Parts: sequence; C-alpha cells; structure tokens
Amino acid sequence: MDRISASEAEDLGSIPSGPTIFHQMTSEEIQQKIYQMGQQARGAALALSLLSADEKSDILRAMATSLRASRVEILAANAKDISSADERGITGSLRDRLILDDARIEAIAGGIEQVADLPDPVGEKLGTINRPNGIKIDKIRVPIGVIGIIFESRPNVTSDAAVLCLKSGNATILRGGSEAIHSNKALAKALQEGGEQKGLPVGAIQLIPFTDRESVKVLAGMDKYLDLIIPRGGKGLIETVVSMARMPVIKHYDGICHAYVEAAADQDLAVAIIDDGKTQKPSVCNALETVLVDASLAEEFLPKLKQRMDVRNVEIRACEKTQAILSGVTPAKEEDWGMEYLDLIISVKVVEDLQAAVAHINEYSSQHSEVIITKDEAQAELFLSSVDSACLYHNVSTRFSDGEEYGFGAEIGISTDKLHARGPMGLVELCSYQYRVTGDGQVKDIERQAGL
Amino acid sequence: MDRISASEAEDLGSIPSGPTIFHQMTSEEIQQKIYQMGQQARGAALALSLLSADEKSDILRAMATSLRASRVEILAANAKDISSADERGITGSLRDRLILDDARIEAIAGGIEQVADLPDPVGEKLGTINRPNGIKIDKIRVPIGVIGIIFESRPNVTSDAAVLCLKSGNATILRGGSEAIHSNKALAKALQEGGEQKGLPVGAIQLIPFTDRESVKVLAGMDKYLDLIIPRGGKGLIETVVSMARMPVIKHYDGICHAYVEAAADQDLAVAIIDDGKTQKPSVCNALETVLVDASLAEEFLPKLKQRMDVRNVEIRACEKTQAILSGVTPAKEEDWGMEYLDLIISVKVVEDLQAAVAHINEYSSQHSEVIITKDEAQAELFLSSVDSACLYHNVSTRFSDGEEYGFGAEIGISTDKLHARGPMGLVELCSYQYRVTGDGQVKDIERQAGL
Repeated sequence: MDRISASEAEDLGSIPSGPTIFHQMTSEEIQQKIYQMGQQARGAALALSLLSADEKSDILRAMATSLRASRVEILAANAKDISSADERGITGSLRDRLILDDARIEAIAGGIEQVADLPDPVGEKLGTINRPNGIKIDKIRVPIGVIGIIFESRPNVTSDAAVLCLKSGNATILRGGSEAIHSNKALAKALQEGGEQKGLPVGAIQLIPFTDRESVKVLAGMDKYLDLIIPRGGKGLIETVVSMARMPVIKHYDGICHAYVEAAADQDLAVAIIDDGKTQKPSVCNALETVLVDASLAEEFLPKLKQRMDVRNVEIRACEKTQAILSGVTPAKEEDWGMEYLDLIISVKVVEDLQAAVAHINEYSSQHSEVIITKDEAQAELFLSSVDSACLYHNVSTRFSDGEEYGFGAEIGISTDKLHARGPMGLVELCSYQYRVTGDGQVKDIERQAGL
Repeated sequence: MDRISASEAEDLGSIPSGPTIFHQMTSEEIQQKIYQMGQQARGAALALSLLSADEKSDILRAMATSLRASRVEILAANAKDISSADERGITGSLRDRLILDDARIEAIAGGIEQVADLPDPVGEKLGTINRPNGIKIDKIRVPIGVIGIIFESRPNVTSDAAVLCLKSGNATILRGGSEAIHSNKALAKALQEGGEQKGLPVGAIQLIPFTDRESVKVLAGMDKYLDLIIPRGGKGLIETVVSMARMPVIKHYDGICHAYVEAAADQDLAVAIIDDGKTQKPSVCNALETVLVDASLAEEFLPKLKQRMDVRNVEIRACEKTQAILSGVTPAKEEDWGMEYLDLIISVKVVEDLQAAVAHINEYSSQHSEVIITKDEAQAELFLSSVDSACLYHNVSTRFSDGEEYGFGAEIGISTDKLHARGPMGLVELCSYQYRVTGDGQVKDIERQAGL
C-alpha cells in the first residue's frame, strides 16, 4: 500500500474545521464518554485475546459482507461529508480523498478479506528458556490491548486500522477528523454490526462519535485504558499527540530519503534507482528527496542524472559544486537539505566520500529509507552499518519500504521511531509479548522453608 | 539482581533536597549545556555502534580496572555525600543506600566484568526475507542510540546503567539525584577515564554535573538527541518523566503481584510459594501483595496459610469471607487491593472461581507478575492466557521475575510497559533493529523506465 507522507496529509490542516457534532458537550461530558469507551474497550480486549484465529477470520469476513450490504447507507453518509466539503470550498486531491464510491467500498471490503486470510500473529511461541532449576519460560506473542488511532481525512482508515488491530487481537478506539465524520460513523456501524453477528466483542471497535478537539486530549491522557496511540496524519497532528500522550506513541513522520551514488557506482543503475525513487510516485514517504554524489564521479555522473531528471521534468536544487558542473539548476538553500518536497524537485549535493555522505544523512534524514548505489561490497557494508535509518538499501529503490513489499501482507504504517516497531509495521508489530513460566513448586529460597 | 520496588524508592521523595551544584545557572544555560551533551552523545553513538564485541569488552574491562584504581577518590567523594545526608538527618536504609565502601566498589567493578563477558547483542541477524523480485531483506539488531537515565539515590546505578547501555552500543546521559552527586561524579569520571584509554568514544557516557530540577525537564524534551528515557526511581519521578517526555519512556512501576490458589491446588505447595513470594524479601517489586483463594477450598486452605503467615509475622488484611473463616485478621479496605505493601503485610480475598480471580487481577494488578497454584493444567492454561501481566507463573514463585533468573545475564529493569520491552529487560531489550536490503538494481516500476 502506498503510504501518503505525513507532510502531504498535513495540507489538511488548512481545511476549515468541519461541523462539530454534539458541540454542546462540556469537557466533563466528553471525558466521561471517552472513559466509558475506554473501559468497554478494556473488557473487549480480554475477550478478543481469547478468540481463536478462525473465530477472528469469521468475524472479519462478516464485517466485509456487512460493509458491502451497507453500501447505500455508507454512500449517503459520505454524500453529507462531500457536500459539507463543497460548502467549505474544498477541491482537488483534498476533496478526492474524502470520496467513497462503489469501487472504493469494494476495495475496503476486499482489503478486510485479505487480512482475514493472513496468519494469526497471536499466541506464537517466540522462544523458550529452560533454566537449570527446572522452570520453563515461554515467551508468547500477545495482543497489546487497547489501541487508540487518531486520523485525518480518508475514511478508509476507519476500516483499515480497526481490522488490522482486530486481527492482532487488539481493541481500537478510533477518532477521525470532522471532515469525514458521517462516512466514518457509517463505516464503523457496518463493521460493528457485521462483526457482532459472528461474536465480535462489544466495544472491540469503537469510533468516537464527535470530533471536538478535546477528545484528542482526553484520549492522549487516558493511560488507564489505552496501551498505545497511533496518530495517522500530518506532522501537526503527530506533534500534538506526542506532546500530550501519557502512553507510548508510534509515529510515522516525514520521509526525507537519500540516495548516495558511491565512487564505484554503476551509473546507469544509479540513474534508474533515482528516477524510480523520485518520479514513480513523488507524493509518498519512501520517495527520494536528496541525491548525494561522490566527488570522484560527479563530473561524469551529474550530466547523466540531469538528462534523466529533465525528461521527468524534475527541478534540481544543487549545491555549489553541482552548480559548477551543471547549468540550469536552482541553487540549493540550507533548508533544502531538510525538505520533504513530495513533488518533482530533488536536491543534489557533491560529497567528498562515504563518511561525508553518512554524516549528511544522519544529520538531515528523517530516518526512514536511504540507498547506496555501488559495486563495492565493502563500502556498501560500511554504509549499511553506519546510517541510522529504519530501511537501508544497496542497489535497490527506496520505494520498496512498504509492508506489502516486505511480505507482511498489510501494514498499519511505517514507523520512524526506534522503539518497539521500526520501518513497516505489520500485524506482529501490533503485538506485545508475555512470559509464561511453568514449574513444579520452585521457590527462590528452598533452604529457608526447609528450616521451618 | 533484586530490584527495589519503585514504591520503596519513592520514600526518597521525602529526603530534603541536597545541595544543588551550579545553582547559579539559568534555565538557558542548563538547556545549552544539556543540548551540548546531547549532540556529543549522538556523535558518540555512531562511533559506539561500529565497535566490535571485543573492543567493547576491552573498554569495559578497562573501566573496571579504573574503578578499582580510583577507590580512594570515590570513597572521598562518597564521604561528602554521606556527611551531607547526616547534616540533613537521613538515617536507616535511606542512608545505607548512599554508602560506598571497598566491598561495594568491588561489587560494581566485578559487575562490569560480568557484563564484558556477556554475548554482544549488536549485529545479530534476526531474520531474512527473500522476496520474489530478488531483493533480500535482513533484519539486524542495532543499538537504540542515545539513552537518558534519570535515577535517584544508589550511586551504583551510575555504573550499572552506563555499562549495560555501552555493551548494547548505546550512548548514555545520566542524571542522578542530588543526594549522591559527588559519588556519581567520581564514578563517572573513573569509568570515562578507564574506558577512553581503550577507545571509549568521548561523550559515550556522560553525567549531568548538576542536579537542578530543570535538567529533568530539558532531558525529557530533548527528542532531537535522546531516543529513549528510562527513569529509575519512585513513582513520583516516573510520573514526572512520563508527563514531560517527548520520546519513548520505559517504566517500571510498582509490583502489585498476586497468587491465585485454584480449586485443584496442592495446598502445601501453595503455602510454600506464598511464603517465598511474601516473606523471602518483602521490599522488592516481584514480592507478593495479594492472595486470591478459590471459594471451594477456602475453609481448608486459609487456616494453613494463616499458620505460616503467623510464623513469619505477616499481617493478613482479609476480605469479609476470609474474616468469617479466620480470626485475628485485619479487615481489608478497598484501597488494600491496590497496595504495594513491600512489608510483612498481605491482603487475602476469597474468589468464586478462576474468572473472578482473573478479573480481580486485571483490575488491581500493576501487570508485573502473578502466579496460579493448581494441579489442573487446563485451568492453569486459561489463567496464563487471560491475565494481562508481563510474567505469569504456574506453580512457581513470582520472585523469579528477574533478568538473571531468566538467564539474561543482567537487567536494566523490569518493564511494566507493553511496548518494546515487557518484564525483565536485558541487553537485547536495549536494542532496536534495522532492515538492510540488498539487490541488483530493483526498481518499483521497470516498465516505466524501459519505455524511455
């Protein structure tokens, strides 16, 4: 699944706020309502953790069926959101993302069935330790518990996120944006009704039915019931959640991805990888933003790169050394090195050697994905061990940073964090673990009891 | 290593603040100094991640040697802290924890050598995915980066924490309490000087040389340089860090641990496990605080339990049903069920069945460690799958929740979190991972480039 970068999503911050539902609620009422949802989710989480793989698959299939059967209601709800967007003058891709139609509903339902077919991550034995005293320690994969998802815009997240959480045994509390509230409510209702026919615990999937800003604050502070919060949206939203959250947050920030064309690069291959990374889909977070070119091949390589970028209508923002070699390029400013363009723009810098490339990346990268292009295995190895990013590539396009491309079947996001989950997050990354220890009466101090 | 429970450590909150060093510093100066340390640590982290296992072991051994050689300076520094504690009227175990002597310094040095001998967690291949398109995805264990440790009281934490972080390739910034500032500085100096002789990167181990409260705030906000923060101390300290931190926090809160004596329990074994859990070392976080007794054997079992508790001078705080069976017990109040006594007190409740026991535990437990005592394997299995705590035991004392008992060699703490690390945290839990992907020019869209 191509992941729209956080920065692109952030455009949505400029949408005038949509209608607030239940705007007559006081802070106390909002808090009380969300805490009730939290308590219910906690109960559902225990029930969910005990469901078998088959039971969960049956529930998921029933949810897909219910979604298809609720097509008319969902489209009617969506029409309200679209008309509200039109009243506020929203156009272009911002409006497009809100739209549901037959094809999109079918895609969401088909996606649920795909998740139903994936292996169940829960209950897998991750290891066993047999200790000399006879105790046996099993490390077992278990659900995390209750996951809060705060998202903007695209209503399909309601289903995508809830379904992945359910498959991994977690209860979810969803808080979508006001611009899609009617669509989100219709989708959540269809999922709940379909699932509950096959034993989905009540409270396992809940959508906060109002979009007051207060609700984000309440969720972020509710560490009594919420084990994890995942914000899916723009940088502003993520920053807000991070600053308020009392529980762990898994973030996917920008993708400021780099290609380093090393001295021993196959130059045609380098051009192909940069072309793919920059132009095949510029709006996604694993797209390239900066090319670092080793000084030893800059004079030969840069014209080849320029030729291809010209074919693709890509603007080059160049360092001084690059400007000395290429004409018709824009001088890069300092801020260009930290920019996620998500557009047909690329920054290009000549670097002295691999160490300089690594230093540049570790300074400016968002720790998402980087590639080295070289035939020199030792240099590639050094690059892979020195760069502090989630996904590192040697002679492969960064566009492969994706849960499906990694074989995970589905992904909830690409984490730019280092704790718990890094890079593409699939079902196993939506789980925790637990130690289950068995024995036959072992105590820490046998002698002490024998002395009684 | 027996871990003092957070709640015991919290007593230290009542110590009047010790002398603040450099108290003339402004907030800006504190921030500037700590950010400098952060930047230096970030540079050291890259250098550390490239050290071989042997290089790190040599550094650790040199640190142990240096610590022994600095005995006189360390003891002199410690004498200042003790005299300051005496001036403030600190006595008993609080004073005892501050004391360093020859034996304790030797224990710290010996501990470092033990860590040097442990296997290196960094660089291990955690898995490989070969994709149909020919790309190979290796998942490699890597250091987290820069870890902040905020701790109170015991100066040995300066060494223990820095050494475990170093072994796992992480740089550390330590912020100890004012009561041990002289000891901490002397220990850090000895570690740095010894390590640097064998190539410890400058900035890899840093102690904040002042103890203004502002420094905790600055550290917790410094997500530019700090990847993780671990508070080691009382609940108040942990809460403060959690509410301020912009980066992940790994917490070890209280240990409110439960034993459930199931209907088919071996009753003598149950008494032995409860005795061990409660009385062998009451001040630690894996000690038992509550016993749940199945109603079907309460009349027979409770007098046996009472007899043993009497031998150990343990006060029983009993539910109404227990009071009806036992005389000479204290009635339990509602707050008893959430109490971490860390003392010769235990709460006892009669429950209807396993479901009631699980419900009680999931409500009141701190999700640390719980045990079921039963001969019924099916009931044990149900308990182990239903209780949402880090370490679950069947017929084994909860006192085994410990990194060394689990065979981890050493531990930095016992996490009551569910994300990243749960239960005893050893060296591998101080690491993250990274995907390293190799190929021969794979791009996402081959046809698009072929069309040029």
